[in-house]
Amino acid sequence: MMIKQDSREPEMQLVADLNNIDITFKREFMKVGDYEFENVLIERKEINDLCSSIIDKRIETQVDALKKSGKDCFLIVVGNLKDRKVEINENCVLGKIVSLVYKHNIKVLWCEDDFQFVFLLKNLFKKVHERLRGIK
Amino acid sequence: MMIKQDSREPEMQLVADLNNIDITFKREFMKVGDYEFENVLIERKEINDLCSSIIDKRIETQVDALKKSGKDCFLIVVGNLKDRKVEINENCVLGKIVSLVYKHNIKVLWCEDDFQFVFLLKNLFKKVHERLRGIK
Repeated sequence: MMIKQDSREPEMQLVADLNNIDITFKREFMKVGDYEFENVLIERKEINDLCSSIIDKRIETQVDALKKSGKDCFLIVVGNLKDRKVEINENCVLGKIVSLVYKHNIKVLWCEDDFQFVFLLKNLFKKVHERLRGIK
Repeated sequence: MMIKQDSREPEMQLVADLNNIDITFKREFMKVGDYEFENVLIERKEINDLCSSIIDKRIETQVDALKKSGKDCFLIVVGNLKDRKVEINENCVLGKIVSLVYKHNIKVLWCEDDFQFVFLLKNLFKKVHERLRGIK
């Protein structure tokens, strides 16, 4: 399974390989999103980056770009809210997530570390593949 | 703000009151879902209950019932996956969440404790109210 990965994203190939997850990441510059497979586009955000992007409003631009892509858009948050190092009220973060899910129709998934993240990717893209091929 | 709450759910009024969150819970028996406001229906699951319901497949029946309600359906998970006491591979849980979001079109939100949960409820229902009233 070949997944396009933005070249500015951290290396994930080793995480996949070490856990016997059969994904090949094809690293290239992506203008929008961080991972892409068929009609699905994913923005990955570690919890601290999520918090920073809410504070400096980068998240707004990124969400607009995701929506304009016309793809099925996901945000995957990596890490727990309580472990954040960025100073922001947790309600601001939760409120923004509600806004993304309810107002902007972005699908949000949470995971706790890179292994879970790579597993989520594989599981999601397997389901995308099945749907596109009419298997399920 | 009046929210219908299933009478088998834990008491949330005190959590709301102590945190100055202006929600009044109206407790009554609900056949489907745990919280309801206008066209939104919410199933709340603590992480251990989520895991158990995946193991005994209760989650399938509950999701079917949510979907058949014709409402805008949310699952709110309370707690972190790593803190689960129920023996289940984390990939099973993540895979099920992907399935709920991607295949069943259930919106999934995560939070870490009851306070965050009540805040999520209030935030979500405020946005539902705004949309229905055409405010935003």
